[in-house]
Amino acid sequence: MCQEGFHLLPIGHVRSSLTSLDDAPRQPDEGAPEAWLELDAQAAPGLEGLVVGDELLVLTWFHRARRDVLKVHPRGDRARPMTGVFATRSPHRPNPLGLHCVRVVEVGQQRLKVAELEAIDGTPIIDIKPVLTAIGER
Amino acid sequence: MCQEGFHLLPIGHVRSSLTSLDDAPRQPDEGAPEAWLELDAQAAPGLEGLVVGDELLVLTWFHRARRDVLKVHPRGDRARPMTGVFATRSPHRPNPLGLHCVRVVEVGQQRLKVAELEAIDGTPIIDIKPVLTAIGER
Repeated sequence: MCQEGFHLLPIGHVRSSLTSLDDAPRQPDEGAPEAWLELDAQAAPGLEGLVVGDELLVLTWFHRARRDVLKVHPRGDRARPMTGVFATRSPHRPNPLGLHCVRVVEVGQQRLKVAELEAIDGTPIIDIKPVLTAIGER
Repeated sequence: MCQEGFHLLPIGHVRSSLTSLDDAPRQPDEGAPEAWLELDAQAAPGLEGLVVGDELLVLTWFHRARRDVLKVHPRGDRARPMTGVFATRSPHRPNPLGLHCVRVVEVGQQRLKVAELEAIDGTPIIDIKPVLTAIGER
């Protein structure tokens, strides 16, 4: 039975050379590769209007995260004091949504190639939004 | 019965003087007020470490949005061509998550006062994340 709350359906999945959490950098400026955002056929019309060079925010679902964690050592560093997850970018949080700022480098039929993305291969994509300051008032 | 996908549970709700979609500005720089992010008791420990001045990204659920819309006239302006929702900030999208950049102006027991927030009173809060460039490497 469903609990109270809201239901997310993935709009697609990340295709990346990153296949293991151990390989994934914690932030994109720490060596993340280019990756494809492959959309499901029914969601693909939502890409219309996006072009190479656009800056986007990609929302993903950290499907391997723990949802019962409210405090963490930032970046897993036990020397740092326990901090509320809402003050960190930890994947472990009640609703484990990832937020990634990327740039479009290629536009395909129902997919976008983006740089740089630290999410691993197979990560579900939940939403894509323009960076407002970059694309203006769309 | 639950469909395939993921389940979101709100961590709290927005308390705001904005009570109607008609009053809500489309973007925060268009006259949005201060508002409270009131967290549920079980999520509140996740706020630890946040202080006045922090810049945050607040994820909300547009509980009145349509989920079957993939193209819109940007900003509802029929003079502008139909555009994929992933190239716009329209609330109408397959997974109607809102993303708001705010600044903490007051920290309460299990709530934060933030400026400026264009979400209406009662909007469910899904997640809170630091703006990475502002808070650094937490």
